[in-house]
Amino acid sequence: MASGMAITLDELVKRFGGEVVGDGAHAVGSLAPLDKAGSAQLAFLANQKYLPQVETTRAGAVLISPADLEKVTNRAGSNFIVTPNPYAYFARVAQAFIDLATPKAKPGVHPSAYVDPDAKVAASAVIGPHVTVEAGAVIGERVKLDAGVVVGRGVKLGDDVHLYPNVTVYHGCKFGARVIVHAGAVIGADGFGFAPDFVGEGDARTGSWVKIPQVGAVDIADDVEIGANTTIDRGAMADTVIEECVKIDNLVQIGHNCRIGAYTVIAGCAGIAGSTNIGKHCMIGGAVGIAGHVTLADYVIVTAQSGVSKSLLKPGMYTSAFPAVPHGDWNKSAAIMRNLDKLRDRIKSLETALADTAKRGDTSGDE
Amino acid sequence: MASGMAITLDELVKRFGGEVVGDGAHAVGSLAPLDKAGSAQLAFLANQKYLPQVETTRAGAVLISPADLEKVTNRAGSNFIVTPNPYAYFARVAQAFIDLATPKAKPGVHPSAYVDPDAKVAASAVIGPHVTVEAGAVIGERVKLDAGVVVGRGVKLGDDVHLYPNVTVYHGCKFGARVIVHAGAVIGADGFGFAPDFVGEGDARTGSWVKIPQVGAVDIADDVEIGANTTIDRGAMADTVIEECVKIDNLVQIGHNCRIGAYTVIAGCAGIAGSTNIGKHCMIGGAVGIAGHVTLADYVIVTAQSGVSKSLLKPGMYTSAFPAVPHGDWNKSAAIMRNLDKLRDRIKSLETALADTAKRGDTSGDE
Amino acid sequence: MASGMAITLDELVKRFGGEVVGDGAHAVGSLAPLDKAGSAQLAFLANQKYLPQVETTRAGAVLISPADLEKVTNRAGSNFIVTPNPYAYFARVAQAFIDLATPKAKPGVHPSAYVDPDAKVAASAVIGPHVTVEAGAVIGERVKLDAGVVVGRGVKLGDDVHLYPNVTVYHGCKFGARVIVHAGAVIGADGFGFAPDFVGEGDARTGSWVKIPQVGAVDIADDVEIGANTTIDRGAMADTVIEECVKIDNLVQIGHNCRIGAYTVIAGCAGIAGSTNIGKHCMIGGAVGIAGHVTLADYVIVTAQSGVSKSLLKPGMYTSAFPAVPHGDWNKSAAIMRNLDKLRDRIKSLETALADTAKRGDTSGDE
Repeated sequence: MASGMAITLDELVKRFGGEVVGDGAHAVGSLAPLDKAGSAQLAFLANQKYLPQVETTRAGAVLISPADLEKVTNRAGSNFIVTPNPYAYFARVAQAFIDLATPKAKPGVHPSAYVDPDAKVAASAVIGPHVTVEAGAVIGERVKLDAGVVVGRGVKLGDDVHLYPNVTVYHGCKFGARVIVHAGAVIGADGFGFAPDFVGEGDARTGSWVKIPQVGAVDIADDVEIGANTTIDRGAMADTVIEECVKIDNLVQIGHNCRIGAYTVIAGCAGIAGSTNIGKHCMIGGAVGIAGHVTLADYVIVTAQSGVSKSLLKPGMYTSAFPAVPHGDWNKSAAIMRNLDKLRDRIKSLETALADTAKRGDTSGDE
Repeated sequence: MASGMAITLDELVKRFGGEVVGDGAHAVGSLAPLDKAGSAQLAFLANQKYLPQVETTRAGAVLISPADLEKVTNRAGSNFIVTPNPYAYFARVAQAFIDLATPKAKPGVHPSAYVDPDAKVAASAVIGPHVTVEAGAVIGERVKLDAGVVVGRGVKLGDDVHLYPNVTVYHGCKFGARVIVHAGAVIGADGFGFAPDFVGEGDARTGSWVKIPQVGAVDIADDVEIGANTTIDRGAMADTVIEECVKIDNLVQIGHNCRIGAYTVIAGCAGIAGSTNIGKHCMIGGAVGIAGHVTLADYVIVTAQSGVSKSLLKPGMYTSAFPAVPHGDWNKSAAIMRNLDKLRDRIKSLETALADTAKRGDTSGDE
Repeated sequence: MASGMAITLDELVKRFGGEVVGDGAHAVGSLAPLDKAGSAQLAFLANQKYLPQVETTRAGAVLISPADLEKVTNRAGSNFIVTPNPYAYFARVAQAFIDLATPKAKPGVHPSAYVDPDAKVAASAVIGPHVTVEAGAVIGERVKLDAGVVVGRGVKLGDDVHLYPNVTVYHGCKFGARVIVHAGAVIGADGFGFAPDFVGEGDARTGSWVKIPQVGAVDIADDVEIGANTTIDRGAMADTVIEECVKIDNLVQIGHNCRIGAYTVIAGCAGIAGSTNIGKHCMIGGAVGIAGHVTLADYVIVTAQSGVSKSLLKPGMYTSAFPAVPHGDWNKSAAIMRNLDKLRDRIKSLETALADTAKRGDTSGDE
């Protein structure tokens, strides 16, 4: 993760905040774990169990919280940057080093790209090879459209948006600032809506499905990140809405007219059916399925592979998935599971029978 | 949803059927819900619970069924189009308004597209930027290939097919008329088939998987719609077949040699393994998993997230998914679930013990 | 599956091994099932139940194992190629016939492709229309990049790699020889990692998610095949690793820092969370979900739709999925399932009650 150049702790603090304890003039050029870091590297302590390593590390400096620094008795020759959230601080510094190490793309439109004359593209934007930007689209400052990206009619992309290769954005969608969309994602495809127009039953049934036009769009707020090959459908009448700082992993499906509340995170392979309303600060686990037209309160957590078929109106953690066990054991339990009602009935008759026996026991006892 | 122009009710009925009750010369230019519509807008009644709104709406006209119109006592100054299926009628009219409002793409091949000299493209087709059409492909009348679409060797696309951006169609696949495929979908990739060619066991195992060539294709009938980033594999020997008017949502996987019966709908994130045969008019819920080599009868409904491992030969609704409950409650039940056989055994011994007690109770009673 | 030309059995054996029993000069030009094959076609016996067809087939030759040939009493006029694994042999021959039948793509870079001047592309490679190859990429001998493929900065592709249309490979990823990636797959997108940087609770909560830079890459060994629209994320610090001859189906998600052991197969729609370590020769069923930071031993089999939340350190088959049953039956069992603890408590009290009754029964018996 070498950046090719180094920054003093004083400079880091000036840029990212925190306070230097030790030699502010010491320079670091990259990041490393406590046990591997050298004197030109910056390490961090985010997990109590690595506290002992802080006294033995050869790191040029350690990102540490005030509370943890208290616990470090031997600070001889060590440097620290004290910050309430060393892990987040690490993330920001790491990003800075990467930006330094990454070749800057030249602003402008690649000669192989097609930009409609009626589209507006900021001079600072980077439009890559084989990109298509259709009429009426508005591309903000420093936007990066990678190779093969397709931006539809009238799409608005805020400043510093980055669309990775082969992303497709359908007509009329709106993106806030700093939105990141990974390769192959599709934003604004038609929601899944068809009106049944059939007469007759069984083999005599005739007619067809009539497509319900999807005239809404997708409205994505600032600082949203969307994973590779994820799909977010446009609304039927109103827009599908993704609020600020929502983070969505790969291969996630979000149906038409959904609203995803700010700061909510959705893990890979989750599927959310149409017109569902998810609160703020929710955590949706991997491969979770959520039915349409339901509401999740703020701060709801759904664990991986669980299914949500009704609204969850109280914050908290919800589950409906089983962990895999040896195949034979599972089948044994599954067979009984399919006949739980029989089990329950046997208990009921036992209770009745026992009551009788007890009565008759009393009678005999009275003799 | 403004269309920029208006149509009289008489014109609508001429084009879409039904019967005008009221002023056939009244013109409408867009659609809206009963409670929001104005005099230049068309509303519809598809759900009994909105019946009262029909008497209060300011809509220029209301799409309504004959039966429902009977229930409307106060029709003063209202206009109606009477049709057996107002919702389907609404869908068709809405599509017409959108077509009026949407800029027509000019027929022809975009200069940045690559069309092999040995491909046949109808003069009325619209071939977008960066499209690739390979040798032997045949592209029908009014076909629309959006930016970045790739059509492989010898592919046949029927009239009025629309492939959205970055769709890939592998060599030899056949599409009927009016097929719609959304962005990023992949039609005709190799099915997942490998012959084990290993010798020895455990760490001593050597050899490899040998790829089974997939020489079938995908055969898609008229009026099929396929969602974004969905994948439908080509057959191993014969074709994978999608019958007419099948509607498939986003991120669905359909394995090699499957047959999906006409008018069946498949919701997002469903996965269907190879050589499975799904009947007509089936409804497959979101994230449903269906094993390979099974058969589903016509009119089978599988609810969301359920798993199908055996054939379902009778029409009806099938389920195997649990709704999420509070995490603690679930874990309590799940723990018992894993030991259901112990529970059953305890009941069994209770039954035996009770029988004995009862007998001994009788004896004592006889004294 | 006609190849346009024919090969003698002697030539086949020279090329693919095995031994001719019968007329080595007999030529075949394609493959077919035993019951359909003609004298110019090659059939195979891989399944005992088709053994009788071997004596009646009109195939020009039959691929058969030594043990099965023993069982063929009437070999009059039949030809055989004897090989320990007829199915794998069939697969190899079928591939050879396809290669003969498939038009050879001309080596070179399509005029519409963009190859950065700082990229190295072997003269024998085939770079298709609208392909993008970025700076520092190295493309091996006979590599095939289909239309719309995007190869990022510094990517290394080994010899005979084939990337199907619209595949995206992010910067820095490494591919071994003969890797096949199907259309729309995304290799090396950022792993899903964010540091929480929030203060306050409930509505008072402020702050945001801070992106953890993903500075690892994806390292793919020889003979791996990856399905359409599958996503494999780059590592956070170290690489995500896919070992040799791993076979991955469509729409599979593999999180950052995973390691997938050699020869493991992963069926469609499976999702594997980050930092998970899967052994060699495992079989992961369709739509299986595997949690992050767990380990699967070699030779673990997880059946379709099961969920793995803890490490599985012993080889064997694991399950946690229910097969769908009629909706009503399921709901009845599911309702009881949610209250299994009540059922257990009723059994407990029955046991206590029975013990008492029994005691009192004894007493009464003593009189």
